[in-house]
Amino acid sequence: MTPKTFTVVGGGPVGALLAILLARHGYKVGLYEGRPDSRKTSIYEGKSINIALSDRGWTSLEKIGISAAAKKQAIPMFHRAIHGVDGELSSLPYGKKDDAIWSVSRGGINEQLLDIADQEPNITTYFEHWLVDLDFESATATFSVKNDEERVVEADYLFGADGAHSKVRRLAHKLPRFSYSQTYMPQCYIELNIPANSDGSHKLKKNALHIWPRKDFMLIALPNADGTFTCTLFMNHSGSPSFEALQERSAVKAFFESNFADAMDYLERPVDTFLEKTAAPLFLVQVFPWSFNRKVGLIGDAAHAIVPFYGQGMNCGFEDCAELDALIGKHDHDWDRIFPAYENARKPNGDAIAELSKRNFVEMSDLSGDRHFQLQKKIEAKFSEQHPQLWTPLYSMVTFSPEVPYSEALKVGDEQNKVMQKIMALPNIEDDWDEQYVMERLFALASETFGDGQ
Amino acid sequence: MTPKTFTVVGGGPVGALLAILLARHGYKVGLYEGRPDSRKTSIYEGKSINIALSDRGWTSLEKIGISAAAKKQAIPMFHRAIHGVDGELSSLPYGKKDDAIWSVSRGGINEQLLDIADQEPNITTYFEHWLVDLDFESATATFSVKNDEERVVEADYLFGADGAHSKVRRLAHKLPRFSYSQTYMPQCYIELNIPANSDGSHKLKKNALHIWPRKDFMLIALPNADGTFTCTLFMNHSGSPSFEALQERSAVKAFFESNFADAMDYLERPVDTFLEKTAAPLFLVQVFPWSFNRKVGLIGDAAHAIVPFYGQGMNCGFEDCAELDALIGKHDHDWDRIFPAYENARKPNGDAIAELSKRNFVEMSDLSGDRHFQLQKKIEAKFSEQHPQLWTPLYSMVTFSPEVPYSEALKVGDEQNKVMQKIMALPNIEDDWDEQYVMERLFALASETFGDGQ
Repeated sequence: MTPKTFTVVGGGPVGALLAILLARHGYKVGLYEGRPDSRKTSIYEGKSINIALSDRGWTSLEKIGISAAAKKQAIPMFHRAIHGVDGELSSLPYGKKDDAIWSVSRGGINEQLLDIADQEPNITTYFEHWLVDLDFESATATFSVKNDEERVVEADYLFGADGAHSKVRRLAHKLPRFSYSQTYMPQCYIELNIPANSDGSHKLKKNALHIWPRKDFMLIALPNADGTFTCTLFMNHSGSPSFEALQERSAVKAFFESNFADAMDYLERPVDTFLEKTAAPLFLVQVFPWSFNRKVGLIGDAAHAIVPFYGQGMNCGFEDCAELDALIGKHDHDWDRIFPAYENARKPNGDAIAELSKRNFVEMSDLSGDRHFQLQKKIEAKFSEQHPQLWTPLYSMVTFSPEVPYSEALKVGDEQNKVMQKIMALPNIEDDWDEQYVMERLFALASETFGDGQ
Repeated sequence: MTPKTFTVVGGGPVGALLAILLARHGYKVGLYEGRPDSRKTSIYEGKSINIALSDRGWTSLEKIGISAAAKKQAIPMFHRAIHGVDGELSSLPYGKKDDAIWSVSRGGINEQLLDIADQEPNITTYFEHWLVDLDFESATATFSVKNDEERVVEADYLFGADGAHSKVRRLAHKLPRFSYSQTYMPQCYIELNIPANSDGSHKLKKNALHIWPRKDFMLIALPNADGTFTCTLFMNHSGSPSFEALQERSAVKAFFESNFADAMDYLERPVDTFLEKTAAPLFLVQVFPWSFNRKVGLIGDAAHAIVPFYGQGMNCGFEDCAELDALIGKHDHDWDRIFPAYENARKPNGDAIAELSKRNFVEMSDLSGDRHFQLQKKIEAKFSEQHPQLWTPLYSMVTFSPEVPYSEALKVGDEQNKVMQKIMALPNIEDDWDEQYVMERLFALASETFGDGQ
């Protein structure tokens, strides 16, 4: 029997992983990427874009057996290194002793996946192919290639893995009964850089995600393998302070020096970079359905662009791929069943991680400010250690518990929060938090809420 | 001084009212409508589209002094006439004795407003002008007119009053930081007709909104001045029962006969009409901002398309116009202040009525089913009569209290509901609801929540 064919639009990490999984199920896959091949042309212009991968990402990558190899190129971050305004440094672990989130080069993981795709006889990869049109009835795609040429590609099925600005998704706007939303956050961001020491070592502690939390804005830094850190400044688009308000060199300089004094020794030309760059917007995209006519599907950021504050964007996209992989087996290649099962399974999880990613800006940017909230986290961590069956903190459910769906984590987290409100309302909680009676009260409340386990 | 100029895109009721208000403030207004002039060409094909107007609409129309004249052509509906499956008829008043919502012909009110616009020397109205492009920096609009001609129109400012499918809004999708969502409801609808008696009288009780509530679907009928009723059948797009599932004539016939037996004597060819028509989708649109570059604004359904279940769509659009009218005076024609003040004032109200309109499908379609809920309404009505300062039922706040913003009504309604949950949880509430102790308990709870008045 002739194998069924797939067009995958978008050769980023999610598109490449999807292509490999489909090929290994016996499909013939055309993988189409708009940009040139980064392995041949430097398209990153010296920029290290890094992302956080955690257990959901690793578990999904293990479907093609490469998590160990990929981990070798990643840097584990075991805790948040919190930089106070006064330069004081404190540390907040991400989870239990060996729990880490991993700083990964986006380009590196992408190239690793594209190399594997090249080895698959069922995959042909095309670069510099931009999608311009798509027939959602037949899954026939039209790409623009060099010299304004157009190429029409037929296939049995098509997936849009073409990211937050997905052309596949935007073309779907014209379809009947397609619900979509695109929501801008008040914050924008720019990227800054901390160079390596001359011996290639890191200027800041390597195995941490560095945060300068300043409530309405924050700076973060993730380590790269080459000794540099990629930093991101998140701040409101307008208001005070904001990218819009900070236009004068003197004001920008004063802003950096008063807020990020200890980082000024490390950051590479922060004031110049701030003045040269245009702040990029942050937005969320939510749509439904994620598939059309049992022929065309959306996956990864194309289906659910979120904001980066939970470090889950690529993890979620990889998990989409893993779910689809499982459903191909479960429904024996019957795409009339796979498409609806896929979107019904993943949509609630995409919505949940969108909500969590929005909420986490407040949590991250206020890390050193809200002592009450930090105390709550400390009590939760202690209780979780004593009663792991009864309580896994929300961050750990999302980040280190791939067996718990995002939607379940969000739900349980909200229930935990209600319980903790009662604990935090105890009269002398600030002084007594470490007393036995607090743990006993929490145990009683948690048992009542979560029974014999979540 | 040369008067400033406005382009208003869309000559429906909201666009026409806006044009009149702007003209009376001294602006020179070009009013552009895509369709032909309904006063010269019958574009309604015999269809009476009617809508519900209530106090917000009337108050807003009074800004141009025509509410009394417009009311003459409207039919007051004092109560819901609820048709049970067994044909039993019951009645539920909308508010206090003289409170009514009004069935108005959409075409009639539109033509009345266009006639007034024709009298205004500052307004020129153009029909058969379809917007094709818009420069959001300069408010320069390009319209397609007959014979594929294009006309470029310059103005100081432009408003998109071009309805739920607004072209102005869709063109704004490409602007930076524009948040938008379009959400389909599970329900679709078709319109049916009940003809007049041969003497021109109504076949059903005239001064009521008739509802056949069947939980997952419902039929409603609104009276027209010519003795007919315009009926709308709302039902899910897919599932059972649904427009998708009901394809066979025999099944459609059985569906109507078992669910709307008493209406079958009146409805005009319901089964044929059902089979001939394509069910129309219901969707909500929410966007922000509602203005761009202090040059271009959105108003009415173009800014906030909602679903029809609260009968507030046009009321809300008219209220937008009234708010804008007030702000022109308040900010003395300074549109740098008027645009932001307008969108900040109206956006929360647009969102609130969107939420209320969604929720009301459940309330309307389950009117005869949920006895517990009906009892709650009865207790609320009784209490409100005894303590009008302390309690106005949500429906009355939305419909008969234009001084209460939609956002406030939603908030107070949610608080009222929490209070009523406690009352409805009283042990013998089904038997005791008319006892004095229930009113006393409600008084205590309401006083605690709402103090000396809402």
